[in-house]
Amino acid sequence: MVNQRADIGWQSSKSDSSGVSNSGESSKESSRCSTPVLDADRTDRLRDKMKRRIESGDHWFSLEFFPPRTASGAVNLISRFDRMGSGGPLFIDITWHPAGDPGSDKETSSMMIASTAVNYCGLESVLHLTCCNQTKEKITAHLNKAKRLGLKNIMALRGDPIGEDWVEEDGGFNYATDLVKHIRCEFDDYFDICVAGYPKGHPEAESYEDDLRHLKEKVDAGAHFIVTQLFFRAETFLKFLKDCRDIGITCPILPGIFPIQGYHSLRQLVKLSKLEVPEEIKQVIEPIKDNDAAIRNYGIQQAVEMCKVLLASGEVPGLHFYTLNREVATMEVLRQLGLWAEDPRRPLPWAISAHPKRKVEDVRPIFWASRPKSYIYRTQDWDDFPNGRWGNSSSPAFGELTDYYLFYLKSKSPKEALLQMWGEELMNEESVYEVFTNYITSQTNRNGHKVMCLPWNDDPLAPETNLLKDELERVNRRGVLTINSQPNINGKPSSDPIVGWGPPGGYVFQKSYLEFFTSSENVTALLQVLKKYEPRVNYHIVNVQGRNITNAHDMQPNAVTWGIFPGREIIQPTVVDPVSFMYWKDEAFALWIEQWAKLYEDESPSRMIIQYIHDNYFLVNLVDNDFPLDSCLWQVIEDMFVLLDSPQETQEEGSDS
Amino acid sequence: MVNQRADIGWQSSKSDSSGVSNSGESSKESSRCSTPVLDADRTDRLRDKMKRRIESGDHWFSLEFFPPRTASGAVNLISRFDRMGSGGPLFIDITWHPAGDPGSDKETSSMMIASTAVNYCGLESVLHLTCCNQTKEKITAHLNKAKRLGLKNIMALRGDPIGEDWVEEDGGFNYATDLVKHIRCEFDDYFDICVAGYPKGHPEAESYEDDLRHLKEKVDAGAHFIVTQLFFRAETFLKFLKDCRDIGITCPILPGIFPIQGYHSLRQLVKLSKLEVPEEIKQVIEPIKDNDAAIRNYGIQQAVEMCKVLLASGEVPGLHFYTLNREVATMEVLRQLGLWAEDPRRPLPWAISAHPKRKVEDVRPIFWASRPKSYIYRTQDWDDFPNGRWGNSSSPAFGELTDYYLFYLKSKSPKEALLQMWGEELMNEESVYEVFTNYITSQTNRNGHKVMCLPWNDDPLAPETNLLKDELERVNRRGVLTINSQPNINGKPSSDPIVGWGPPGGYVFQKSYLEFFTSSENVTALLQVLKKYEPRVNYHIVNVQGRNITNAHDMQPNAVTWGIFPGREIIQPTVVDPVSFMYWKDEAFALWIEQWAKLYEDESPSRMIIQYIHDNYFLVNLVDNDFPLDSCLWQVIEDMFVLLDSPQETQEEGSDS
Repeated sequence: MVNQRADIGWQSSKSDSSGVSNSGESSKESSRCSTPVLDADRTDRLRDKMKRRIESGDHWFSLEFFPPRTASGAVNLISRFDRMGSGGPLFIDITWHPAGDPGSDKETSSMMIASTAVNYCGLESVLHLTCCNQTKEKITAHLNKAKRLGLKNIMALRGDPIGEDWVEEDGGFNYATDLVKHIRCEFDDYFDICVAGYPKGHPEAESYEDDLRHLKEKVDAGAHFIVTQLFFRAETFLKFLKDCRDIGITCPILPGIFPIQGYHSLRQLVKLSKLEVPEEIKQVIEPIKDNDAAIRNYGIQQAVEMCKVLLASGEVPGLHFYTLNREVATMEVLRQLGLWAEDPRRPLPWAISAHPKRKVEDVRPIFWASRPKSYIYRTQDWDDFPNGRWGNSSSPAFGELTDYYLFYLKSKSPKEALLQMWGEELMNEESVYEVFTNYITSQTNRNGHKVMCLPWNDDPLAPETNLLKDELERVNRRGVLTINSQPNINGKPSSDPIVGWGPPGGYVFQKSYLEFFTSSENVTALLQVLKKYEPRVNYHIVNVQGRNITNAHDMQPNAVTWGIFPGREIIQPTVVDPVSFMYWKDEAFALWIEQWAKLYEDESPSRMIIQYIHDNYFLVNLVDNDFPLDSCLWQVIEDMFVLLDSPQETQEEGSDS
Repeated sequence: MVNQRADIGWQSSKSDSSGVSNSGESSKESSRCSTPVLDADRTDRLRDKMKRRIESGDHWFSLEFFPPRTASGAVNLISRFDRMGSGGPLFIDITWHPAGDPGSDKETSSMMIASTAVNYCGLESVLHLTCCNQTKEKITAHLNKAKRLGLKNIMALRGDPIGEDWVEEDGGFNYATDLVKHIRCEFDDYFDICVAGYPKGHPEAESYEDDLRHLKEKVDAGAHFIVTQLFFRAETFLKFLKDCRDIGITCPILPGIFPIQGYHSLRQLVKLSKLEVPEEIKQVIEPIKDNDAAIRNYGIQQAVEMCKVLLASGEVPGLHFYTLNREVATMEVLRQLGLWAEDPRRPLPWAISAHPKRKVEDVRPIFWASRPKSYIYRTQDWDDFPNGRWGNSSSPAFGELTDYYLFYLKSKSPKEALLQMWGEELMNEESVYEVFTNYITSQTNRNGHKVMCLPWNDDPLAPETNLLKDELERVNRRGVLTINSQPNINGKPSSDPIVGWGPPGGYVFQKSYLEFFTSSENVTALLQVLKKYEPRVNYHIVNVQGRNITNAHDMQPNAVTWGIFPGREIIQPTVVDPVSFMYWKDEAFALWIEQWAKLYEDESPSRMIIQYIHDNYFLVNLVDNDFPLDSCLWQVIEDMFVLLDSPQETQEEGSDS
């Protein structure tokens, strides 16, 4: 099962393996896609992805979240999207709460959370939308906004009427069917539409059969798939499924799975959804109702058993999980079912945005490797995204840093934690070197805290950076403050667990890369040393004023990560680009001040140390072009230190010679 | 000297090696070229190339040719362009003969020969143009046509007046200066303009000084460089050069070198140009005037000595050779001077067209590898040429095969030679297998003739194909009639003499490729075998009716040759493209009939054998995607033969299953 999951996204190449197509002369006229489709999942619509999965018998799961109440809750939820996204959900969905201004630009609105999931986390997302007590204009405005933000899927719901006395309005939105019709009428085929099914019948429906007829109407009005309300017994769903099929509902019907996570949340949910908990469940949980761990374990076991029955029926292509914004129970159920992608294949070395406008994007500058959301944010207004070659995109304009404080660019850690990691008080530049070194080594600092992040790296070291740990530690100790690096790779299989990406059967390559801040004295020596490494090493050296020293040929980008795959053109997803480096340096230098210096009082020695570094250090990047050989970049740094240790020679040349 | 020449085209990366540019903030706004400039020479204007060569002290040579009288003369001259082009001339020039309809579309016209040199041979070319007795409209029409054909350089000459009584016309073209002015007036800066200098003064000039003043006028009118009339003593040129500089002529002045090649041609030339042969030369050649070889040897020695003096003066950046459309003497002089590029660096694996519209082109389908002129011809009407990725070019339309008989697509060999090579009479399909096998092995056939070409390969085997000789021989003997192949290459230096291309310091790669005709029985077995090689081997199999069998993923192209270079994006110059394969197959099948079957009488057995193959065989291409491993394609063919030898199994599956 895990192996099967590890192939997510490459089914189309598998299903092609019959290998025989009889296209005759007309194949000349084929309207071939203009860019290599690395992954059909990336460009397909949700309905098509489902279709392909159903055909291949490859089970999927999806995850439901609700919008958070606070900004810090939003930051946490987005981190959760990243973590749970790595398990390979086919989609996630975000609920809609009419009382909470769900269509607004607030960072906690349903609209913005769904937008973030699509654009920044690269997740196929379904936005809920309720129509009850809404005008057509308002609904259309929400849908237009969703479309503009890159959302392609809507879960069309009636929603709960406000107040007790709900009367049908003529021509208004009385049922979800009306909303489905409205979406199809106003937006034609643009949105994939999901509707809700009630295995026990909607509590307000006249009868189970009447509710089934309503569901049929919703599907006939243009819905593409159904997600059901939660239920407690597999047979409840399987009967419902059969009844749906019997009255001619043919679209995918996904069971809503609710792993019981606690006594009180269960009671609350049951009350809200007007469901009855079966006796056999009550009998188990009542005696342990004060033991949270025991209830959660039971919930997991109960969900796993039920899901196994559902999947074994052969009638259930995917499972939909009500997560209640929690991770543990759902992940555990998925792991036990073998549906969690333990080693998700990366289509590219960086996470792809799910915005339809970006679907051809397959080249990015390496500089934002640790800040992909910032890159997406700063390029959100681009009309075209580079594909095939970075160079095909002519001098794109990066967004300014004015909206810099946008919540999803903020550090996940609160100020207190940052001070503990980076020092309540800095003594000198060496204190800063120590912070960098501790980050690299994952050792606790002198106050007993681990340095888990840096302004340029919100997460611990990437596994491939770990490969360089010893060398990085050595140079950071001496003031070569590394913020980005990658080892050289000379043709590892695309399935390599650390450096692999892309379709199976390919080979990936990298040029060795190192990016760091360092003092102008070091740069003077470095430039002297670099003469010996022409043309093997390309460099870009810049300070905050933009003084730029480079040996880049005609300002051309240098491809530093590429892959060769069966039956495809070459993919080169990462470049060192001289032009965008000048945009990145603004951001890289600003992070010293915005994320670090501002932790301290104005005029405090600590703040002045960071300010000094910001004002005087250079940002340097080095590429070793000779990827089949051992990287020479460590030797370059070593040579620089040797030269610095023989002071009479370093005086010969100025840093801006 | 040879080493220096071997670096042609990469000076800009060398001259960059100071490596330091202080561009500051403004570098963000750099108007970077939208495609990787592999070779600045490729996009520069002739005047810029000269400037760069002069700055780097890198001597060049150029070659003058005149248009041929007959179509077969044209085919020979174009082959000579290819051979002499490989020595690395900075440019060639084509003379203009007003009496010979030089601006027409005839295959022998100056215009068409120059166009062929630019477009099909990839040579920087200068078209001569004379203005004497011409109307402005006629001249402008010639220039417009030249521009349309991709010509960028004009040698502006007065030309000889027709008849004896030449009178100046008011407002007409009386001097080359008028033509230079006209070109600059009508075409602004579009053309690079060359004018003629006369080291002894023009024979019709009133005085040497008067002629120098005329030359100054031509340069002041807008000429970019000067080529001189031939001369016999280095001091003649050096004095002329000094006199030019003294009156303020600063542009490059190239000495015209005429290696004496025979007694009669010398006399004729001297008569035409009204020059005097110096006594010391007369004294040597008069006694040996009947010994052609001796005169030629003397001519070579005399030219070499003179050129050495010129180059040693430090005032001569390049040498211009009057070839008289012959190869031996000029090549020998250049070899002795160390100017002939013995191992010319290939910027790409295939010859680049010099047409300005094609300057970004850096991807082509592999199918035309042995027929690059045909590819250029069939794509001449494209508005855009693929660069970076083939896939970026959306379903380009290939030109039809109607103009198929255009002279430069014809075989260089006459019918009699083809019959000797391919057989006066074919007995059966095996006779055809034998022709292919003899071509591969370079052995003489049963009539004692070597098979030097095939309809799909006008030249002997490429050196890299030679690497596969034994395998190719084995399979051709059994009716796998190979027409194109390349070995796999896993990262050889770009300087490799056989498979290298592109800038120094890079690495080149290839996927193993094999293309062949074979019978439908073989294809049936092959398809059975290929199932075992999924997804390692990609295949396209097509017959003349266009029945197409492939396992290509979404009709995507497969990059089969690529290179990784310092400081650049990845270059992937050769692809196997499913769409263009359907255009190639029309041509590949047509060659059986047009070049081979038509050698024989209608209804003759030989003709019917070729017709049978044309009608019934399939064209197959195979790519082994696993380039780091030994190619499996030979094993695929071997497996096919094994299966064919066990007949009961082959019956299971039809060829179009």
